[in-house]
Amino acid sequence: MWSDLLPIGRDDGTGGYRRYAWTREDATLREWFVGEAHARGLDVVEDRVGNQYAWWGDVDAHVAATGQGGVVTGSHLDSVPDGGAFDGPLGVVSGFAAVDALRTKGITPARPVAVANVVDEEGARFGVACAGSRVLTGAMTTERALGLADADGVSMAQALRSSGRDPQEYGADEDALRRIGAFVELHVEQGQALGDADRLARLRLDPAPAGSDAWGGAVAVGTSIHPHGRWRIDLPGLADHAGTTALADRSDAMLLAAEVTLAVRAAADRHGCVATVGRVEVTPNGINAIPSHVRLWLDTRGADTAAVRASVAEISARVADLGGRVAEQSWTDDTPFTADLTSRIHTAVRGDRDVPLLSTGAGHDAGVLATAGIPSAMLFVRNPTGVSHSPAEFAEESDCITGVDALTTVLEDLVT
Amino acid sequence: MWSDLLPIGRDDGTGGYRRYAWTREDATLREWFVGEAHARGLDVVEDRVGNQYAWWGDVDAHVAATGQGGVVTGSHLDSVPDGGAFDGPLGVVSGFAAVDALRTKGITPARPVAVANVVDEEGARFGVACAGSRVLTGAMTTERALGLADADGVSMAQALRSSGRDPQEYGADEDALRRIGAFVELHVEQGQALGDADRLARLRLDPAPAGSDAWGGAVAVGTSIHPHGRWRIDLPGLADHAGTTALADRSDAMLLAAEVTLAVRAAADRHGCVATVGRVEVTPNGINAIPSHVRLWLDTRGADTAAVRASVAEISARVADLGGRVAEQSWTDDTPFTADLTSRIHTAVRGDRDVPLLSTGAGHDAGVLATAGIPSAMLFVRNPTGVSHSPAEFAEESDCITGVDALTTVLEDLVT
Repeated sequence: MWSDLLPIGRDDGTGGYRRYAWTREDATLREWFVGEAHARGLDVVEDRVGNQYAWWGDVDAHVAATGQGGVVTGSHLDSVPDGGAFDGPLGVVSGFAAVDALRTKGITPARPVAVANVVDEEGARFGVACAGSRVLTGAMTTERALGLADADGVSMAQALRSSGRDPQEYGADEDALRRIGAFVELHVEQGQALGDADRLARLRLDPAPAGSDAWGGAVAVGTSIHPHGRWRIDLPGLADHAGTTALADRSDAMLLAAEVTLAVRAAADRHGCVATVGRVEVTPNGINAIPSHVRLWLDTRGADTAAVRASVAEISARVADLGGRVAEQSWTDDTPFTADLTSRIHTAVRGDRDVPLLSTGAGHDAGVLATAGIPSAMLFVRNPTGVSHSPAEFAEESDCITGVDALTTVLEDLVT
Repeated sequence: MWSDLLPIGRDDGTGGYRRYAWTREDATLREWFVGEAHARGLDVVEDRVGNQYAWWGDVDAHVAATGQGGVVTGSHLDSVPDGGAFDGPLGVVSGFAAVDALRTKGITPARPVAVANVVDEEGARFGVACAGSRVLTGAMTTERALGLADADGVSMAQALRSSGRDPQEYGADEDALRRIGAFVELHVEQGQALGDADRLARLRLDPAPAGSDAWGGAVAVGTSIHPHGRWRIDLPGLADHAGTTALADRSDAMLLAAEVTLAVRAAADRHGCVATVGRVEVTPNGINAIPSHVRLWLDTRGADTAAVRASVAEISARVADLGGRVAEQSWTDDTPFTADLTSRIHTAVRGDRDVPLLSTGAGHDAGVLATAGIPSAMLFVRNPTGVSHSPAEFAEESDCITGVDALTTVLEDLVT
């Protein structure tokens, strides 16, 4: 599976992936998904936001007969700009591999099982992360989503139309949600929690089970997603000539941007959370023109909601002092995954192994679904460096295989 | 003339102009130039870099007979991103208007006169200002120019080809230079020197001529261009996830960019010059990705070469401390316009009026030509706010008409 996936949307210059929602690369990834499903005799269906499900078993008959949905695993195939190979695809590939493993073991599921490709998770194109699952569950309105625009001014409605889809059909989908009795997302870990022995030791259960360390931190079970949000910061200036305007006569938006960027770091440090200015747009962005406007995007997260809020309030006050404006683009409170399901999969994978429980600073569709009342849980696969959202993102093959083993164990437990 | 020019390349959102070398907008401007020339019965010729000349009189016969070139006036039609309406076009429009005025006065020039459109002055697309005149005079090699690339990676050679030109024909042009006996460029002023009475008073000649103030600071004669240069600054980081990477584990190029931007301003302030970070490129520029690379462009100028050099040295040391690199992209020493010609046109326009002499922080093709030994001088038209490289750039109609009067006087003096 990897050899087919790796060339899609890879930038030769950076070695990173540029796979954005409703682009040509995204269409190629969707075709790959359909091909993998058909090769296994799975039935591909889509919901109203375009998520793809490859079903093993007749889920509609199952829902009609039992009132219960099937078991869905998977993740996303889109990327951040110059993202790594594992963030998203590892969950989809592991899903197909786990289906193969269940069949090899001769398992006949009592509940239908699906592998899913959840669309537009990173929000790289339209600015809102988990847009697909947010609209699916009604957490974001269809109107807002369709009106989001990319950097070229193309709205999501236009992008859907260009992909041969009807924006009228796009929206929340109760029928699709009823088919999901449980969602288990496997994902590469994106921090250093599992990456070194010291940090791992802090996550160890006490007392450690007998014979622990068989999996040695290769996988963890997720507990919750830290509160996180995105803000847009607009800073004003007055365009003028870089050679003829005295320093005292200038109103230079770039200087304000520099001050705000440093203030962001200081505020995060003070309040014990993380904050990032990752994206900047300068107007007019000419070498010899004083910037008339700089737009920054702020991403802030942390284990503690009050700390994150305090940090953003401090930054907002500084921006207001400088004559700028801060607009909240998204906010997600601390998001626990579904406790019962988390406990059940932890029991299943733990056996006599020491599998840590881990909360994360990264957003995931499993969090959106859990909030919407769909039983959802996560498995994380070790990332030895903690580097993610980067071409340097990495996971050992042996850890990935352990991840598939763990997912297979979980699915077997849930369907038999 | 203005009513035809104003819609070309104007962005409806910002109200600014986006007229870059060898684009569709540039081609439209070139067609406008040919139309104005033909409407006046002037002969349009081009040189090897694509500069257009609308000749009144047979310049080749004149060169052959006298060994002297004709008198060329004009300026450029391209713009910075979201530039103003006057920067460049005012000189071309005034040139045609001055030809009209000479004919109305019944002048028969003893030397041929041309209005010129000098290509690619702003360097907005390929990063090097005055690229047309630099290549024409050999100040920049043809190889370097053809290899310059725009933000989309299109080289100048490719852009020329796309415009139906042969890059093999592009290069220095001795024949074209021989036709230019004198170059007088009229340009909107880009600082506040003529814009208020106090600053103007400092430029007044002492003693002021009797009956001074008839032109009241509407025009000035240029003396020199301040030393100026452009540097590219590359700052390293490590791409990583904005939510899962602890502050202590980060290498964030955006923080370095903020520090350098503030250091640029402080160094310029300390050394009494001006410095601007006007353009920024962030990699990967994703909201939830820690920047792995930020590229800044620095523009620094000042009346004193040593001060500019000291300021850049200080910035370079800071960048090196931060692990970054500084590359000089262009450097132009203090550039006096041709003294004899400047003195002659000042005498011609001064008469009994108080016309100030003015040095400028803005680069101009007249400076490149003067350095190459072509007698070159400049006239500036008052800019009441000093704002330039901005949609807010402005000049009063009455001042523009005074500019045409002054240019007419200068041309009459040079050709009779």
